[in-house]
Amino acid sequence: MGRKVAIVGVGQSKFGSRNDVNMAELTWESIKEALNDAGVDQKDIDYFVTSNAGGWSSEPLPAVIIAEYAGLNPKGTAKVEAACASGSAAVKLAHDMVASGQADIAMAVGVEKMNESPTPTIVEFIGRAGNYFWEFQNFGLTFPGYYALYATAYMDKYGATEEDLALVAVKNHYYGARNPKAQFRKEINVEKIMGSRYIAWPLKLFDCSPITDGSATVILAAEELAKKLTDTPVWIAGIGAASGTSNLSKRKGFTSLEAAVAAANQAYKVAKIDPEAPIKYFDVAEVHDCFTIAEILAYEDLGFAKRGEAVEWVRNQETYIGGKIPVNLSGGLKAKGHPIGATGEAMIGDLAKQLRQEVEKERQAPIKKGMALAHNIGGTGHYAYVTILSLDKV
Amino acid sequence: MGRKVAIVGVGQSKFGSRNDVNMAELTWESIKEALNDAGVDQKDIDYFVTSNAGGWSSEPLPAVIIAEYAGLNPKGTAKVEAACASGSAAVKLAHDMVASGQADIAMAVGVEKMNESPTPTIVEFIGRAGNYFWEFQNFGLTFPGYYALYATAYMDKYGATEEDLALVAVKNHYYGARNPKAQFRKEINVEKIMGSRYIAWPLKLFDCSPITDGSATVILAAEELAKKLTDTPVWIAGIGAASGTSNLSKRKGFTSLEAAVAAANQAYKVAKIDPEAPIKYFDVAEVHDCFTIAEILAYEDLGFAKRGEAVEWVRNQETYIGGKIPVNLSGGLKAKGHPIGATGEAMIGDLAKQLRQEVEKERQAPIKKGMALAHNIGGTGHYAYVTILSLDKV
Repeated sequence: MGRKVAIVGVGQSKFGSRNDVNMAELTWESIKEALNDAGVDQKDIDYFVTSNAGGWSSEPLPAVIIAEYAGLNPKGTAKVEAACASGSAAVKLAHDMVASGQADIAMAVGVEKMNESPTPTIVEFIGRAGNYFWEFQNFGLTFPGYYALYATAYMDKYGATEEDLALVAVKNHYYGARNPKAQFRKEINVEKIMGSRYIAWPLKLFDCSPITDGSATVILAAEELAKKLTDTPVWIAGIGAASGTSNLSKRKGFTSLEAAVAAANQAYKVAKIDPEAPIKYFDVAEVHDCFTIAEILAYEDLGFAKRGEAVEWVRNQETYIGGKIPVNLSGGLKAKGHPIGATGEAMIGDLAKQLRQEVEKERQAPIKKGMALAHNIGGTGHYAYVTILSLDKV
Repeated sequence: MGRKVAIVGVGQSKFGSRNDVNMAELTWESIKEALNDAGVDQKDIDYFVTSNAGGWSSEPLPAVIIAEYAGLNPKGTAKVEAACASGSAAVKLAHDMVASGQADIAMAVGVEKMNESPTPTIVEFIGRAGNYFWEFQNFGLTFPGYYALYATAYMDKYGATEEDLALVAVKNHYYGARNPKAQFRKEINVEKIMGSRYIAWPLKLFDCSPITDGSATVILAAEELAKKLTDTPVWIAGIGAASGTSNLSKRKGFTSLEAAVAAANQAYKVAKIDPEAPIKYFDVAEVHDCFTIAEILAYEDLGFAKRGEAVEWVRNQETYIGGKIPVNLSGGLKAKGHPIGATGEAMIGDLAKQLRQEVEKERQAPIKKGMALAHNIGGTGHYAYVTILSLDKV
């Protein structure tokens, strides 16, 4: 139902501390790259969705600023926010308008400038991502505190250790070091991570994704047009979206994000993927590693690993290239960086390049099955989006 | 192309100063009414889009709070912002996902709690709605100041007076007095308006829409389902969306919002409406009267009146019931109130009830042609959305 939709262009700015550019300039870096990649012009874009969380930004209406600077007036636009999954929400909405025939070409543009604000402001804002009134203001829970609850529950139930969590960061830094656009291009070892200071026990500084400035853009086109624009359209095979309770105290448990499971199952159904054995379909995945524990939960919530098994996967390097399924070859949020509103487009964009076999050799997954998956979480499973890409039209 | 989509349920909270409820409770008032109107349950909603501008709110992620309180977990969601047109953007995105087959039933939920913050905070935030860096910070332009530029240009070019502007407020208060959900239910006269204090010359206090708390919800369903759910589906016949430059200094003139013209033409094309004579198609319209001048511009930007003619229309009461085309029978933003993120859904919801002939007798337009139009502007024409409704499937 609806038209088939393909990714025809992707772009990403260098991630990091980008005080060298303002928000519009930063965004233009990825828009320009995506337009060039697609071989289209601003006038060809029927509508663009801007993803941005940015309560800390001086520009409360980023879509307006971007439209003027990027030469996109008078194209229709709106900003979308789904916390750290804003970018995937933007891709979904752009997808839906192309699939419905409301647009032939639509663009999802994500941007975040987090270094504009002092860190305490950011910590407060992100801490409010759950339920401000109850869990932030009354109980003082900040965002690392939320994920620490999941980490301790997982460690308790399955015997995982702090060193196991550290191994996720080691992998993601290993691949980040090989991605020229990553924020951290340095390998790291378990000792270094274990020696870093606690943010919210058991999570230490190097278990956490950083404060990042960056932008990423994905251009989507309808079937016939996509085939004209590129020899390697990357089709959207399925999208799932779900939400979780705002208060963590209303969750059923702390070793799984229920919204992620629901979103994955939705996407699997649309893409005709067996939810009992999803990894046999995918060459590569990007998952939401805002904290190291989040990547471990993702393996299980997606059905890649069985419950309690992900920690073994980490120990056995099953998500490196050559393992069961390579994950976060971009460096992940941990090393590539996590500019909140741009993370979804960056994940999906990087996977499109993986499927097109255009990333740096040392982090290129072997492409044999032709499918990839992006798992993008907002808040602590408050939002979840799963996007499945395919070289074959599904 | 795409499936036909109809409005099957609408709801609106009482607008005004709503310190009696928190954001989730306020939102639930309109969601509950819309669910009852549609005869559906939370489980039937496949996805809901939350529209909210709210940089002044203590809850930065309203969709998350609403999802839990309204029993909408684990349904997928995202927040959308297009300044004061956020609600129409939400309806468009919900429409597109139903049209594409990504959802069978989708819901657009708008909410704003503006009285939570002190007025200066709101003034600053809304003032930033253009380009913060240039026109707000460097030139001190606030939002009434932006529209005052348009008012003076229009008055200069067409010989309109402050009294003419006041007549728009007189009409909207006349109908607002007849809408039980309106914020201001009092008629007002030209003398009173002329005697109110200047906010930004020539705009006085009673030329301005108020600070409002409120929520409004619209439920959309795909063709077959819509026919099962209701005997009076209100079809979405066309949607147009466009953007204008962030800096007003880059606009070509100040007697028209170019984005509104572009959005109207897009919507007319889809709905097969002759752009030379659109009023012959419509029984009623809601237009964006954030300031009295904005309603006058709207008549011309939509092609209802010729350039310079709108002021005559106002003098001759052409947009009262019985005139050429009744406009803002809800009371408009001016008297019904303008809870930024909910205004689009409120406009579209009220028009659906007009077409269904379900509003209060004294403000019910005669329904003969079966079509209605909502014109919703974000910022000062930074965003524009035009939504056309029809009792007949187009």
